Amino acid sequence: MNYLLVDKLIKNALEEDRVYEDVTTLSIVDNKSRAQVELIAKEEGILCGMDVFSRTFEILGDVTITRYRDEGDHVKAGELVALLEGETRVVLSGERVALNFLQRMSGVATMANKAAGMLKDYGIRVMDTRKTTPGLRYLEKYSVFVGGGNNHRFDLSDMSMIKDNHILAAGGIKKAIDAVRSRYPFIKKIEVEVENLDGVMEAIEGKADIIMLDNMDTETIRRAVDFIDSRAIVEVSGNMTIERLEEMRGIKIDYVSMGKLTHSVDALDLSMKNLEILV
Amino acid sequence: MNYLLVDKLIKNALEEDRVYEDVTTLSIVDNKSRAQVELIAKEEGILCGMDVFSRTFEILGDVTITRYRDEGDHVKAGELVALLEGETRVVLSGERVALNFLQRMSGVATMANKAAGMLKDYGIRVMDTRKTTPGLRYLEKYSVFVGGGNNHRFDLSDMSMIKDNHILAAGGIKKAIDAVRSRYPFIKKIEVEVENLDGVMEAIEGKADIIMLDNMDTETIRRAVDFIDSRAIVEVSGNMTIERLEEMRGIKIDYVSMGKLTHSVDALDLSMKNLEILV
Amino acid sequence: MNYLLVDKLIKNALEEDRVYEDVTTLSIVDNKSRAQVELIAKEEGILCGMDVFSRTFEILGDVTITRYRDEGDHVKAGELVALLEGETRVVLSGERVALNFLQRMSGVATMANKAAGMLKDYGIRVMDTRKTTPGLRYLEKYSVFVGGGNNHRFDLSDMSMIKDNHILAAGGIKKAIDAVRSRYPFIKKIEVEVENLDGVMEAIEGKADIIMLDNMDTETIRRAVDFIDSRAIVEVSGNMTIERLEEMRGIKIDYVSMGKLTHSVDALDLSMKNLEILV
Amino acid sequence: MNYLLVDKLIKNALEEDRVYEDVTTLSIVDNKSRAQVELIAKEEGILCGMDVFSRTFEILGDVTITRYRDEGDHVKAGELVALLEGETRVVLSGERVALNFLQRMSGVATMANKAAGMLKDYGIRVMDTRKTTPGLRYLEKYSVFVGGGNNHRFDLSDMSMIKDNHILAAGGIKKAIDAVRSRYPFIKKIEVEVENLDGVMEAIEGKADIIMLDNMDTETIRRAVDFIDSRAIVEVSGNMTIERLEEMRGIKIDYVSMGKLTHSVDALDLSMKNLEILV
Amino acid sequence: MNYLLVDKLIKNALEEDRVYEDVTTLSIVDNKSRAQVELIAKEEGILCGMDVFSRTFEILGDVTITRYRDEGDHVKAGELVALLEGETRVVLSGERVALNFLQRMSGVATMANKAAGMLKDYGIRVMDTRKTTPGLRYLEKYSVFVGGGNNHRFDLSDMSMIKDNHILAAGGIKKAIDAVRSRYPFIKKIEVEVENLDGVMEAIEGKADIIMLDNMDTETIRRAVDFIDSRAIVEVSGNMTIERLEEMRGIKIDYVSMGKLTHSVDALDLSMKNLEILV
Amino acid sequence: MNYLLVDKLIKNALEEDRVYEDVTTLSIVDNKSRAQVELIAKEEGILCGMDVFSRTFEILGDVTITRYRDEGDHVKAGELVALLEGETRVVLSGERVALNFLQRMSGVATMANKAAGMLKDYGIRVMDTRKTTPGLRYLEKYSVFVGGGNNHRFDLSDMSMIKDNHILAAGGIKKAIDAVRSRYPFIKKIEVEVENLDGVMEAIEGKADIIMLDNMDTETIRRAVDFIDSRAIVEVSGNMTIERLEEMRGIKIDYVSMGKLTHSVDALDLSMKNLEILV
Repeated sequence: MNYLLVDKLIKNALEEDRVYEDVTTLSIVDNKSRAQVELIAKEEGILCGMDVFSRTFEILGDVTITRYRDEGDHVKAGELVALLEGETRVVLSGERVALNFLQRMSGVATMANKAAGMLKDYGIRVMDTRKTTPGLRYLEKYSVFVGGGNNHRFDLSDMSMIKDNHILAAGGIKKAIDAVRSRYPFIKKIEVEVENLDGVMEAIEGKADIIMLDNMDTETIRRAVDFIDSRAIVEVSGNMTIERLEEMRGIKIDYVSMGKLTHSVDALDLSMKNLEILV
Repeated sequence: MNYLLVDKLIKNALEEDRVYEDVTTLSIVDNKSRAQVELIAKEEGILCGMDVFSRTFEILGDVTITRYRDEGDHVKAGELVALLEGETRVVLSGERVALNFLQRMSGVATMANKAAGMLKDYGIRVMDTRKTTPGLRYLEKYSVFVGGGNNHRFDLSDMSMIKDNHILAAGGIKKAIDAVRSRYPFIKKIEVEVENLDGVMEAIEGKADIIMLDNMDTETIRRAVDFIDSRAIVEVSGNMTIERLEEMRGIKIDYVSMGKLTHSVDALDLSMKNLEILV
Repeated sequence: MNYLLVDKLIKNALEEDRVYEDVTTLSIVDNKSRAQVELIAKEEGILCGMDVFSRTFEILGDVTITRYRDEGDHVKAGELVALLEGETRVVLSGERVALNFLQRMSGVATMANKAAGMLKDYGIRVMDTRKTTPGLRYLEKYSVFVGGGNNHRFDLSDMSMIKDNHILAAGGIKKAIDAVRSRYPFIKKIEVEVENLDGVMEAIEGKADIIMLDNMDTETIRRAVDFIDSRAIVEVSGNMTIERLEEMRGIKIDYVSMGKLTHSVDALDLSMKNLEILV
Repeated sequence: MNYLLVDKLIKNALEEDRVYEDVTTLSIVDNKSRAQVELIAKEEGILCGMDVFSRTFEILGDVTITRYRDEGDHVKAGELVALLEGETRVVLSGERVALNFLQRMSGVATMANKAAGMLKDYGIRVMDTRKTTPGLRYLEKYSVFVGGGNNHRFDLSDMSMIKDNHILAAGGIKKAIDAVRSRYPFIKKIEVEVENLDGVMEAIEGKADIIMLDNMDTETIRRAVDFIDSRAIVEVSGNMTIERLEEMRGIKIDYVSMGKLTHSVDALDLSMKNLEILV
Repeated sequence: MNYLLVDKLIKNALEEDRVYEDVTTLSIVDNKSRAQVELIAKEEGILCGMDVFSRTFEILGDVTITRYRDEGDHVKAGELVALLEGETRVVLSGERVALNFLQRMSGVATMANKAAGMLKDYGIRVMDTRKTTPGLRYLEKYSVFVGGGNNHRFDLSDMSMIKDNHILAAGGIKKAIDAVRSRYPFIKKIEVEVENLDGVMEAIEGKADIIMLDNMDTETIRRAVDFIDSRAIVEVSGNMTIERLEEMRGIKIDYVSMGKLTHSVDALDLSMKNLEILV
Repeated sequence: MNYLLVDKLIKNALEEDRVYEDVTTLSIVDNKSRAQVELIAKEEGILCGMDVFSRTFEILGDVTITRYRDEGDHVKAGELVALLEGETRVVLSGERVALNFLQRMSGVATMANKAAGMLKDYGIRVMDTRKTTPGLRYLEKYSVFVGGGNNHRFDLSDMSMIKDNHILAAGGIKKAIDAVRSRYPFIKKIEVEVENLDGVMEAIEGKADIIMLDNMDTETIRRAVDFIDSRAIVEVSGNMTIERLEEMRGIKIDYVSMGKLTHSVDALDLSMKNLEILV
């Protein structure tokens, strides 16, 4: 876990929530009070973000967390996930920030798990995209991986992805590939996004490492795959839904990428309940 | 718009995406090339985040944006939202970051609009919660407002909200209210979250300014409202869905708050298409 | 104590003073030398800021501080407040920064204590304002509280305060109140600053939660209070001096606010003396 | 003016005051409204900080400031200092932060002016110390200079100042001076703080560049000065008050330094009045 | 140019040099003085960093720079590179920081140019490494490119480079390659660093994309290249000097990488001379 | 060691190298693996930067470092400098950043040691300049000191150095000195850079504390020194090479300053070898 980054994200969220000015908790609970409280799953899903959850309380003060379930575990509604014991003020004031991270990360992992599970037995992997929440890309891509998905490029530097507007700018797929290869001859792989069979042919001619079939119907995907015939890695993309994934079974593609995994996720419902004052 | 904050968020997202190391664009497009490109809505919804979208390109270089639709407008699938004209490199490299903000903010505004619309004619307002994406609370609460919703407290300092765990810590609702009133006698309103009619009575006795009916069935809500009889503002909350909102019509409550408005939102599909090189 | 903020303030002050380039101490004392030194009050007052004082040395290295007097205590001239024992370099180089915090905070607490003490037996509380030192508001408002004063709103978001220029902009008190109530119907209290009895009447009509009687003579204050007759909380303000506070005794007001508590404070004289080299 | 630093200070203060969440102004004034407002001196003093005042509004938006009085000018109670014209929201929301800087800086300049004026005709200069407000040293030392005072060292690296605890650590004045000279043989001047005539003699023997007579009575100061006889620069210090300065007239000292100039200052009363909506 | 980063680097360097406290310039030159000054090359080399040089003065104030030579140009000793005209204070105080960037960047470009030129006609490219100055990698890699060299991976994420210690950790080259390919099946190329012919064979078996021949003598390099026979890209590395490069001519390798290009560079001598006061 | 600064530099370098995204190490080594690895000198020189080297690993995780040689030691090619034992991932991923600091710092110390050694027996000290790497001045000046050299002023505020362009701006040496002395009468020493004997005379007349003989031939230096005759400290500067230093022996100068010590340094070759997995 990249704590240089994660600590910044947590501290930023703590300031955003003005955790140190929690007027309710400061009034009700004194400095020395200690309590225990339960972390409970309120719906079924994949748990993700427990290190971020724990680190939030660690930054705030003295809280010990006993985990009954951990990173990547399948949890059920009603299950006790962890028991927190420590400073009452810290537990109460840090709750929302810690849960906001945990719920979103678990939500992403849960959806990635569902999507990846649809295609696992067919040798096709499900990947995320760069359509992530600004500032949280590291945590969201981590959650996709924990859920069983794979990560596409992290950023614009990670590899070359030639998209429709690049092709328009370059004046053709072949020209675009040549331009990238000449400027970065060495370490960058090249992927081309194509929308029809002509595009596929041009990409093959240009020796693209990866071809992304964008927004094609299932029949066109089949024909593209036949044409490519293992001469490039094949990725399918374009408004993929969990339902649509089923149609991909049995087609010889390598990857499906889904923006939804990170841009349209439901938080997993988890909550802190049953606080008990110890001292 | 709080540009002190927004600029930090945008710059952070640009660094996260390594916009200046966009290997594809740097290879294909030269320094002096200029282009125009269309911003198009690919589904119906409420547009929100145009200032953040524009500011992203402004930070990166020289791009002029002509808006055909603006903040809060209802857009339809296929509609031309804006036309960008400027440095091709900036347009291509900044696209994803600008859209990531715009799509999320429009997604939030769209859901808030739908929810608020369900109750508008019944004098009940729909509010957000603190269940927001870490780091983006300002933008998400802004989007809720643009969509027609209202904003609950921004953070833990904004007012006092006495929740279940606080009541457990204090040893009762009355004690909790008294503690807050004694520590912050002056500027903070006090809201109490109650789960049953006993709680409502205690909150009324304690002279809470606002009572939140948490996770009650519709019949109990009605009885609580009768009992309260305008002696406090009434908020209803607890896993509210768009569907459930309908049941609230005609009940004399003031607010419904929904975590979903910010924690489980679908991004609105918008995209940059049809790039044309000008120079 | 908000250490996320306090640590930033201390580190910033240490860099400002170039504590690590203390040419005198680096020349005279070697790396391994340890010493003890006394923290002594050189005048009478209320001690405040001991946690910030201690944290400064903790950030710099290994120093143990034994406190003989603590936060909020009344200290006398000549009294031994604490004994520091640890790295000689840290003690000598950190001294000025640590004292600059402690002396200012104790100065604020001392003045707040004096002011609050004048009215304590009359049920009137003394409050600070937003006229604080840029960057130090948190520490100064904390010091007012430690000294026995109360805190008015922390910032522009905390509640609505309608002042003379707002009234001019809105075209009247009533219009101003209505505008705020319509935009923030829910969690924000509304205070109006009025300069004469007409203003008081308008504010009462508008149902302001709090009325601030600004710069009125004592007789007018009395008449305003009579008119208000408990229909709103009453705050008195305007170039309040310690002397003027006496006149407020017996008038039925709730609060007096004083800018002086934070903008025109004398530091309390404390100093580190009698260094003794141990090793 | 060091805008790299000043901009950070201003932005920090704007965030501290949550200027972008000014609930009152956002409710009352719309986006496009423009106004003018007067900056008025409410008491007599030296004006200082006008660049910081202006820069605050410049950072927030579009406001033009016409200055009738400028940096270092002597202003009288009631005088019109400047006229602001621009966005009403910016003017109202930025007011407090801009004034907090201006009032403190003018307060420092005013006290420095008074102190320096007491000794100007006697060839003695008045200096500040490092007893400044954490984070604001640059602005406070600048204000001392604008007011007519001089600046002592900025920080611990600027020169060597050997104080009582250093002498205790080194085991004598001579040893302390030698240690510094051996480690920093070149660019750093050496000042020694002495409390009695023996100290003066030792400092002279050690060839200190500057001797600070600390907390001596006037008679001892005279004898020290006679003994030094221009062999070192002479600074007098120790709880100096405006009153005490008078006694220094005619004694052959070079500098008097006063902590009070920055640690115990009364803000100068300035205020923004008579707002008039233009559009 | 990545100005988000470059501006941070420049501002940091300006603070490091305390450009706003330039005691010499502040004393000698007043606020309004304007001057011109020449930027002159004092030795032969490749000019690089002019945008950073210019940006430094732009951040500080009003200076216009007329460039007679630009990025990547070959300059001779004594040549006039640019003429600066603007605020005298800015020109004098910013000089050292601006030159420190320009001289280092030009030094890197000059060495890269010399090295790349040795092999250009032989189809072999010269690359940098990650042995860069902490904090300046972006500028140094940019300078290598301007000088005619190529850039190896930017950081540890850019591709996989399996080095000696990784092979020891994995228990063999083949195992190491398989581990990387299984974890990052998609976008990352894999390079293996080998020290002898056995390593070469194992890397070929493992289907490494790139093989780095590390610290081999020329004869072994020839034999490795024969064995590889275009089945992988070939990079040669290991304490490469300008002299050694000559031996590589005519061998069928693709790249030579040199740490020296960034870790042991002589600054190019450039200086600002002949200041003339204009106003 | 200034850890407030050093930690920032290290964290910045770790982010620059994306140490947490080390795709090779993350694939090959698991979370719990521990190893030992040797730090070996590959050429002769002065070791410097061991605290920064150690701190890098400390920031990343759990690694214990046993030092066989320490700060300022003379190391030989092949010598074992330290043994690292700890988390394998941390050791492998942090290696390059830690070495980049250590190699540069040791390079600077080695060159400073060589230069200072040439003149040590002749009572002449060798100093650095402000021609340092942007951002690393503190570490480079520290390395010069560890190597046996002395530090000239740290920044533009540290003392006054009147250079050729200042003299042109002021209209003469005498005028320049007077301007500085009048503005900073107190704590700043004044050095003048002169290029010929006329300049020397003017500087002596103006009572400069230090005279820098810039770019003079050895014969002129001798005559200047004769003329100065101990009335000022004498510094010699201007494209000084190790060879040229020899000519200075026996001339009565106090300091020689060399830009080369920091702007044109060869990194000392050190490397981490022979990793052995423990667990």
